[in-house]
Amino acid sequence: MDHCVYTDLALEAHSFFREGRRPSLPGVEEENRREDGCAVTRIRIVSQEAAQRLGKAQGCYVTLEAEDLSQEGREGQERVSSLLARELRALMPPPSRTAPVLVIGLGNRSITPDALGPMTVDGVMVSRHILSVMPEGVDARVRSLCALAPGVLGVTGLETAEVIRGVMDRVKPACVVAVDALASRNTHRIGNTFQLTDTGIRPGAGVGNRRMELNRKTLGAPVLALGVPTVVYAMTIVRDAMLAMDRAHDAPSGKSEEEMDQVVSHILPPPLNSLVVTPKDVDQMVRRAAAVLSLGINLWAHDGLSVEEIQDFMH
Amino acid sequence: MDHCVYTDLALEAHSFFREGRRPSLPGVEEENRREDGCAVTRIRIVSQEAAQRLGKAQGCYVTLEAEDLSQEGREGQERVSSLLARELRALMPPPSRTAPVLVIGLGNRSITPDALGPMTVDGVMVSRHILSVMPEGVDARVRSLCALAPGVLGVTGLETAEVIRGVMDRVKPACVVAVDALASRNTHRIGNTFQLTDTGIRPGAGVGNRRMELNRKTLGAPVLALGVPTVVYAMTIVRDAMLAMDRAHDAPSGKSEEEMDQVVSHILPPPLNSLVVTPKDVDQMVRRAAAVLSLGINLWAHDGLSVEEIQDFMH
Amino acid sequence: MDHCVYTDLALEAHSFFREGRRPSLPGVEEENRREDGCAVTRIRIVSQEAAQRLGKAQGCYVTLEAEDLSQEGREGQERVSSLLARELRALMPPPSRTAPVLVIGLGNRSITPDALGPMTVDGVMVSRHILSVMPEGVDARVRSLCALAPGVLGVTGLETAEVIRGVMDRVKPACVVAVDALASRNTHRIGNTFQLTDTGIRPGAGVGNRRMELNRKTLGAPVLALGVPTVVYAMTIVRDAMLAMDRAHDAPSGKSEEEMDQVVSHILPPPLNSLVVTPKDVDQMVRRAAAVLSLGINLWAHDGLSVEEIQDFMH
Amino acid sequence: MDHCVYTDLALEAHSFFREGRRPSLPGVEEENRREDGCAVTRIRIVSQEAAQRLGKAQGCYVTLEAEDLSQEGREGQERVSSLLARELRALMPPPSRTAPVLVIGLGNRSITPDALGPMTVDGVMVSRHILSVMPEGVDARVRSLCALAPGVLGVTGLETAEVIRGVMDRVKPACVVAVDALASRNTHRIGNTFQLTDTGIRPGAGVGNRRMELNRKTLGAPVLALGVPTVVYAMTIVRDAMLAMDRAHDAPSGKSEEEMDQVVSHILPPPLNSLVVTPKDVDQMVRRAAAVLSLGINLWAHDGLSVEEIQDFMH
Repeated sequence: MDHCVYTDLALEAHSFFREGRRPSLPGVEEENRREDGCAVTRIRIVSQEAAQRLGKAQGCYVTLEAEDLSQEGREGQERVSSLLARELRALMPPPSRTAPVLVIGLGNRSITPDALGPMTVDGVMVSRHILSVMPEGVDARVRSLCALAPGVLGVTGLETAEVIRGVMDRVKPACVVAVDALASRNTHRIGNTFQLTDTGIRPGAGVGNRRMELNRKTLGAPVLALGVPTVVYAMTIVRDAMLAMDRAHDAPSGKSEEEMDQVVSHILPPPLNSLVVTPKDVDQMVRRAAAVLSLGINLWAHDGLSVEEIQDFMH
Repeated sequence: MDHCVYTDLALEAHSFFREGRRPSLPGVEEENRREDGCAVTRIRIVSQEAAQRLGKAQGCYVTLEAEDLSQEGREGQERVSSLLARELRALMPPPSRTAPVLVIGLGNRSITPDALGPMTVDGVMVSRHILSVMPEGVDARVRSLCALAPGVLGVTGLETAEVIRGVMDRVKPACVVAVDALASRNTHRIGNTFQLTDTGIRPGAGVGNRRMELNRKTLGAPVLALGVPTVVYAMTIVRDAMLAMDRAHDAPSGKSEEEMDQVVSHILPPPLNSLVVTPKDVDQMVRRAAAVLSLGINLWAHDGLSVEEIQDFMH
Repeated sequence: MDHCVYTDLALEAHSFFREGRRPSLPGVEEENRREDGCAVTRIRIVSQEAAQRLGKAQGCYVTLEAEDLSQEGREGQERVSSLLARELRALMPPPSRTAPVLVIGLGNRSITPDALGPMTVDGVMVSRHILSVMPEGVDARVRSLCALAPGVLGVTGLETAEVIRGVMDRVKPACVVAVDALASRNTHRIGNTFQLTDTGIRPGAGVGNRRMELNRKTLGAPVLALGVPTVVYAMTIVRDAMLAMDRAHDAPSGKSEEEMDQVVSHILPPPLNSLVVTPKDVDQMVRRAAAVLSLGINLWAHDGLSVEEIQDFMH
Repeated sequence: MDHCVYTDLALEAHSFFREGRRPSLPGVEEENRREDGCAVTRIRIVSQEAAQRLGKAQGCYVTLEAEDLSQEGREGQERVSSLLARELRALMPPPSRTAPVLVIGLGNRSITPDALGPMTVDGVMVSRHILSVMPEGVDARVRSLCALAPGVLGVTGLETAEVIRGVMDRVKPACVVAVDALASRNTHRIGNTFQLTDTGIRPGAGVGNRRMELNRKTLGAPVLALGVPTVVYAMTIVRDAMLAMDRAHDAPSGKSEEEMDQVVSHILPPPLNSLVVTPKDVDQMVRRAAAVLSLGINLWAHDGLSVEEIQDFMH
């Protein structure tokens, strides 16, 4: 991965490589459409070489870009959740009723921009504990869902993957849905863009600098990963600004990466990777994105339940 | 267990049975002393029969009763934490440096009187993740500590014991410290009494009506259980009031338990077990008790570190 | 007021006096009906003598009793808000567009059962600041609303009435809507009963033991008071239990109030008035009640706006 | 004020103007020293012209710069509070015991980087309500302190200055201490720099874009303003990056401000002023800074009380 593509979104990594002189990357297929007020992009990375160039695993990435969720009412947000559920279903249909889905909310509950995962888990309509004891007493559309927020290494002293694998040994889920806060390159995507992928979680940019890989290989079950950018790294926009200024010049400076990094560290003294760009009302933004995600997961899993039925259940 | 002894404290169960006409129970040893402003009671249940009468497992229970922690300053609270650490050490010395201790915070983080366990976990000074990669870089007094708040069944769809056992299979802790909010019979104990026991957690009164048993037999490792009463069940004080009134009569009413329960359910319509007596500022009380507990655990495990050193680390 | 009627609800005070041998109280008119799943009671206290007997000011009290709001979905809660708005309108129509309404959220934000007022204020759709600068740019159905959570004496060092009067001198509101957490006698009313009155706030039971009187006389503008019981004082249910036991006897004990109080203080050692009975999930209960109240106030003031329009605005 | 000096710190505004070719500004006096691990800078703006150039009111500004408070233990933080108290005393001694000090916490409690003021108010040791009824019962070192978090216009519909003036009419304070979250130009100052000034609050950069002026003239009493930068505007670092790149060129681009702004708005699409740079753990940073501020205010006002005595009182 080029050093300066500091993003968890396949969409942005691909767009970065095509920008300027670069043509569309071989080994990458991209489709675009609009639906329900969102730009829907489906990117398929099919060659190992393309995967390496983009710094993303081979597989399918779907991105839903809403305009500005903070301006949408409740209905607009529910529309995004429904679209999310449909796209999740296209990536992976929910398993049969007897096989549980384990939703994992990654991140640190007490660091707001990193709390997306745990907050999403709070909104998941879990059912496994009821279905396992009295399946006949539960509406036939309800599937087996369970959820866990394993915490982060610095707070628990436990590798997240250890906790998840330990729980999976007991629960034997048919698949895992992992939710995490992402880092993006573009501030207008913060809180407004939803990425769905069947490739799992990969150590990358992220908000929490997680170092584990969570995928079918490491966990032994298919892993859907869902994420929303909640930050842009401050470093990213500083670099972008310098590049933009350089390009705007008649004669580019020809500065090396090292020289540019020196300028960056003057403007942003270390620790660089703890400085992020967010909207001031980061609390509300994360709460809103988590609500869209959990409703989307609920609609996907409990196939056929309406938004109203789910909300009545969760109230 | 007699139906109306609705308490998680061995101290109260024992006191209930000795009250009135009952002599000290055979199979129970009780020692009392005062130390550092606390009443310290050590109860040992040594016969199976006594265990059944009291509704508590055989083993050792230590109770520290502070006068009124809300009136103590920081120093007074730290004194209780130090006493707690010493009593924990008497029950079980912290294991060697290479064997991790797993602290489990039971309970529901979003129900204040049940949040004691998760809040205590937040204050634990975890070290396992550092010790496992660079033991030589860490102060020799620091032991291997890790911590988990597994959530509750209704929110996760997962039995707490499943989660804990799954994690233990990976972490192989030398011992488990389980922290839980308790129910007491006496309102003055709320937030002020600390029970330590080597018998683990047992399905009982509790705040969260947990149904799992967590002890050496079910988990395969010794389990220290720590708890603080954060509620008295409303039902308890209503029954106590009726009994008191009855006794105050010249001629006791001779009412049967069923008749009394009818009167109770008139004053407290169901769901009875969700109604609790707490101080109004339950939020502060739980925060304070959790701070005392986590400091106590830290002082116990990281044997030789001072309060100041621990607080600097956690800041 | 009889010493043992420890309630902020006129409904309960009246019912207490009619109970047993007492006939309906002279000077009190009570009407009952059912509407939208709620029992609606309208009590009018018309004589000074009745006011003194009940310990409530002369005026009109409307009580909406829902069955169990925690079991209602979103729709059920919105239905209560709409009913609340209609009953508010019957008590006092919202003033003209140019005269602001000042909503006051009484109570302490960091004591959960006392946070009802501040949390309600957070959900009020304020408009005064926009209407005062560009009235023509605002939907004609939007009235001028502003809101303040003045805090409590122990935290601010300021008498609440001082703060309110100071602000009123500047804002000159046409009327005040004061929201406060109440104490009730009956646990099933906690979180489920809404009292509306045109008599203002009166030093009484309450959750926060406020000592100010807020009414037309002290504030110089009409005061609507809205409240929901969030606690029953532990003392109340203990006394009720003792009375019940006494009555159940063939021969009443003939105990004096003082003798009974001695028994109470044995079961509930002081400080008595800080011990309350609440549901364990007090946080959720208060959040739910505050949401119903603020939506009700919004529907009342912004006459003609739909629930959807208000929620879109507040999102 | 030059458009691109987007800071609330007089220190930074002055440094900006001296940077590069500019000599020390006439009409500005600056003294520097180190004390207790902090760089202490005292800037006095003495001419109207200098005030206009810097975009700051005439008066005295003291800045305490700690290295990195997140790395300090409790003791290090208390040292900064004590230094703060001494510098406050040099700016303005606390008034006599009978004249209250009103502490105002500006900002929005539910927007974390803007919550500094309200969170500081929560830690103020108020005493006015006790002193006014029984002065003889209170330690002679305790002065009369009261505190208010008036909320923000968008949430209350009330101009903050209206609320403050209304309350001041009633309370007649001898002076006002206004606490607000600031914007800085330099990320290393976030959470680590404390500005004290006798000039009051001025509409400026700020976190909350407040528009009121709070000073002796508008409030009728002397106003001490205290603030800590909790954000750097994203726009600021983008502009800085572009300038740095431009300067690093052999030949500056000669771009006009408008041209540069176009590049900015490409990297940061509007709404620009809601995007901020913060550390990821913004919640902890604000909590820490508020604790230092409130302890500093308490030590200043209650002259002679020790840190321990204050903490025991607030526990």
